[in-house]
Parts: sequence; structure tokens; C-alpha cells
Amino acid sequence: MRYFASSPAKCIMFGEHAVVYDEPAIVMAVGLRAKVGVSPRDDSLVKISSRDLGASAMFDLSSGKAVSGDQASVEKLFPAYRAVEETAKALGKSRGAEVVIESEIPPAAGLGSSAAVAVSTIAAYARMLGEELPPERVSNIAYEAEKVVHGTPSGVDNTISSIGGFIAFRRSEGWLRIESKADFELVVGDTKIERSTKELVAKVRSLRESFPDVINPIIHAIGHISIEAAKALREGDIESVGRLMDVNHGALWALGVSHEALDRLVYAAKKAGALGAKLTGAGGGGCMIALCRPGTAEAVARAIREAGGWPMVAKPSPQGVVSWEEV
Amino acid sequence: MRYFASSPAKCIMFGEHAVVYDEPAIVMAVGLRAKVGVSPRDDSLVKISSRDLGASAMFDLSSGKAVSGDQASVEKLFPAYRAVEETAKALGKSRGAEVVIESEIPPAAGLGSSAAVAVSTIAAYARMLGEELPPERVSNIAYEAEKVVHGTPSGVDNTISSIGGFIAFRRSEGWLRIESKADFELVVGDTKIERSTKELVAKVRSLRESFPDVINPIIHAIGHISIEAAKALREGDIESVGRLMDVNHGALWALGVSHEALDRLVYAAKKAGALGAKLTGAGGGGCMIALCRPGTAEAVARAIREAGGWPMVAKPSPQGVVSWEEV
Repeated sequence: MRYFASSPAKCIMFGEHAVVYDEPAIVMAVGLRAKVGVSPRDDSLVKISSRDLGASAMFDLSSGKAVSGDQASVEKLFPAYRAVEETAKALGKSRGAEVVIESEIPPAAGLGSSAAVAVSTIAAYARMLGEELPPERVSNIAYEAEKVVHGTPSGVDNTISSIGGFIAFRRSEGWLRIESKADFELVVGDTKIERSTKELVAKVRSLRESFPDVINPIIHAIGHISIEAAKALREGDIESVGRLMDVNHGALWALGVSHEALDRLVYAAKKAGALGAKLTGAGGGGCMIALCRPGTAEAVARAIREAGGWPMVAKPSPQGVVSWEEV
Repeated sequence: MRYFASSPAKCIMFGEHAVVYDEPAIVMAVGLRAKVGVSPRDDSLVKISSRDLGASAMFDLSSGKAVSGDQASVEKLFPAYRAVEETAKALGKSRGAEVVIESEIPPAAGLGSSAAVAVSTIAAYARMLGEELPPERVSNIAYEAEKVVHGTPSGVDNTISSIGGFIAFRRSEGWLRIESKADFELVVGDTKIERSTKELVAKVRSLRESFPDVINPIIHAIGHISIEAAKALREGDIESVGRLMDVNHGALWALGVSHEALDRLVYAAKKAGALGAKLTGAGGGGCMIALCRPGTAEAVARAIREAGGWPMVAKPSPQGVVSWEEV
């Protein structure tokens, strides 16, 4: 018997960077998924492999250490191992396993790939141990696992990948589900330009320290964008969602975190009919998103490709983590 | 004897669009000049010609009407005739004249070309009548002349072209001279894309009506940019002036008035070493400006040309209108 789980990618629709200053952000689950298959072993070893990451390694639950695999593989797969370990701890039982990761989510692109892998690993491993965990429980275990790996995660990535749909998030208040009536497709355009989230956050901080009276109102404006966008999503008003994406992209430009390649994809998407487009995540490279009326995403994806980006068409994913078993 | 005057172009450094909502703007005089030569006639006719505009027409001071010239020429040159007429009125005397306009300032590019032509026409014509008018007086006459042609001008264009240097301007408060210690060169990059100021102002208004809580803080942020920029100019801190230009461009992007061609020139200028760059004027096409350390403007101009723009290197012009005579 093999036990499976799959969970969606995260996409920040509104509010990146401003969220650092306790403004609300809107985050959605998109239908690019990480799938994890788990089968039991008769020892305490956990073998994890990922073809996408080109990595394979073995860990021992009794010592908590890697027992085989090159260093790069061990580093890449340790977060998934931590998810297994934290699940065992939460359930008070454990068993060795073969864990196979298959993810459609590009890593290090601001799409919550590592949280989605952790979430799916937890749900599949728990199922193997005979437990079907509710999404909130999976999310909490993933948060504990991420804490060990990433220090102080915001909790957004594990939440959205577990519960799906749309959430509003504010640092001081946590998250809140948004019931969206909006019918749209999303194109995620990857510039494939690497950037450091840490450096971009520091850049905004330095600009804010130099010119607080200029930057604070821009950050507040982004917070208000999230509030308006939540309203528009609830009402199914995709034109307003699109206009707000454009404004948010400009505000991020003002904070100094856009990039020529992102802007090129944004303009290409808009010219191809997208209702709005913006960078998503830290900026300075990475991905942009374009909001499309149903049926128009393919044309927008083509335009993004022609403009030098790597497009992925994705729908909002109301479904969070799901698990099943196969004989 | 021929009587000459020349006066500089205007460039909005900070605050376009926000100025409509009573936020302060910073405007500078740049060393692209409109030169006007005037020589007396023995009748009441005023013949005006401009090689740059490809236009020539004759007006009669006794009737206030055009007496020769095709319709396009008459329309283009009527503002200059109005400047002559208003000067005659202000001085209580008049005389026919041959007026020759030579302008380095591209028309309809947001650089105050028509105000500069009016200012130079007034100073040169007054000099022919034996009066050397102080800049403030020239500015007031130009304002009266523009009112007839343009309805309700802000008064910025005639002021900056007459007095030169830098001014802070606020709709409800008028203008104030800024004593700048900043040593820099400017490159003006023209996209040659035509746009309607009226439509762009209406676009911002509509966005503000849809999302007041989002757009008002962005407009306030632009006002604060002008305040910080005035401080930086007084202190000669060109790095801060440049950073504020970048933020202001992003804020204008958020208001929906940038354009792909403007962004392309902005990125090209920054990559070539400009300290900051932004669109100037209404946006949606038209011109951008790049702030350069002394000696670096040529490289930035080259980059702008390679990116498809029409660059003009210009220095800040502390000199406003000047007049002289030649035998």
C-alpha cells in the first residue's frame, strides 16, 4: 500500500513587503501542487527522494541524523525529513518510510514550494500511520517543522497550502479565510532571476529609514489595497482585483523591489488582455502574476513566454491538502 | 537694431499629478532655451515666424486679428502674438514688429515650450519698446497672455521660465524659490509618444474615486517626496534627490500614468549610472528625466538613445529670462 497527499502552491496576491510592517496581505492557493507518496519500511529509516530536486538521502528516526546521501541532497531534503519527524512526534508513533516527492512548484520562486512539500509529506506520512489529519492540524505540524528549518516563518505558507482558497493575513492578528466569488485564471510568470528576499526586505527598510514620511504612506496604501481586494474577491469583482494589482505593482516599484524583467512580463501580460499584473513575493526577480478572465490565460501565457518569461497557467485552488491511498 | 531674449524650459522634478490635489511640486528651469528676436516695423503689423514649427503668420495690432498665414500657422503662433499684445497693453504702448522664434525646447513634451516662447517674446518686445522688465513682471504678463490661450494655467510654466532656478509650488499657496546647492546634469529623454494630459489627469481622478483609501496615501507620499527633495536640493545631497526620483516614478506607476517606453528609458538611464530617473509631466508617453553626476550625462544620454529614446543633455538653469540687443 502507498499513501499519498498533495497540496497547493502559495501565491501572494497583495501586500508583500508591507506585511513586514503589520499591514494586511492577501494570499491564495494556486493549482500547482506538490505530491508526496509514502510507503512503509520495517526499520526506522526514512528514505526521501525527489526527481525534481535531483536529490536522494536517508535519515534515521532513532538518531535524527542523515545516514546516507551527498551533502547537497541531505540539505535539500532535510526539511521533508523534519516534517516526518514532527509528525511522528505529534502523533506519538513512528515508522520508517520511503518518501517520494513530486512537485510542480518551482523551488525558491516565492511560491511556497517547501511548505507545500512539508504539508504533503505530513498528510501522507500520518495517513500511513493510520491518521487522517484535518488541514489545520497538518498546518500546525508543518509550522513546527518549518520553525526548526527557517527560524521564524510567518505561518502563511503552511496555512494556505493546508487549507487552500484565499486568506487575509496580518502579522499581529494571524489569518482569516476569504470566501471568494471571483472567477479567474492566473498566469504565474517566472523571470528565473534569483534574488535574496533578505536583501530586498533590508532595502525597503533602509529606504523607509531614510524617508519615513514618504515610505510609510506607501506602505499604508498597500495595506488598503489588501482591504479593497478582499472586498472585491468576496463580491467577485475581478476588474477591481485587476486594477488593484496594477496599483500594488506600482507601489512595490516605489519601494524599489521591481525589476526590468518583471516589468517586461507585466506589460506583456497586460497587452495580451490580463486584467491586472504584478510581481509576487519579494521582487527583484522571481515571479509575477497576471489575472485573467477564464479562457484568456493561454494567450497571456504565450505573451509572457514571448517576453522572455516562463509562464505557468494556474487556477485558484479552493482545495488545500488532500490525501489518499493506492494499492 | 534687433532685440533678443531667451528663457529656459521647465521641467517638473517632483510632484506631477499630486499637484492637482494640492500637494507640493518641485519645478526646475533647464538649459534648453527658447530664443526670440524682434525688430521694429513702421506699421501696426506683427509678423511672427518659427522655423522649428514650420510656421509663419501676420497679425494686426489695431484689429487683434490674423491678416495672413495658413490656419495651422495662425493657430501655432497666436500664443506668441498674444504675448506681444499683452505686453503692449501692460506698457501702454505698441509698435509693429518682426518676431522670429528659435526654440530648442520640443513642443508638447511637458517642458513648457509655449510659456518659454511667450516669456522671451515679452522680454524682447518690451526691450524694443525701450523697457527692460524685471523677470517677475515678464512672468505676470506671460500669465495674462497664457490665460487667454489656455484658460486657467497653473502659473508654474511662466514663473520658472522667467526667474530660472528651482521653485516649490503648491496650488493653494503659490511658489517659493529653492536655493539649490545640488551640482548635477540632467538628461531629458523624449519617448516621442503623444499623450493627452487631460485624459491622464482624468484617469488618476477616476482611480482615486474608485479607491480613495488607496490612492490618497500615494498622493500624500508624493507630496512628502517634494518636501524631502527640496531639503536635499538645499543641502546639495544629489544621492537623495536621485533616490526620491526613483520612488516618485514608482508612485506615478501606481497612479497608472507610466508607460512601457518611459520605463525602458528609466531602466536604461539607471544602468548607465544615473542616480535616479523618472517620468516628467503627465506621463503616458512624453519625457523622462535622469539625474546625473557632472560628467556622466553623455553616457546616460547614449544609453537612452540606444533604448529608443531621444535624449537631450541639459543643466539646471539658474538664469531665467535674459534680454540683449544686437546692431
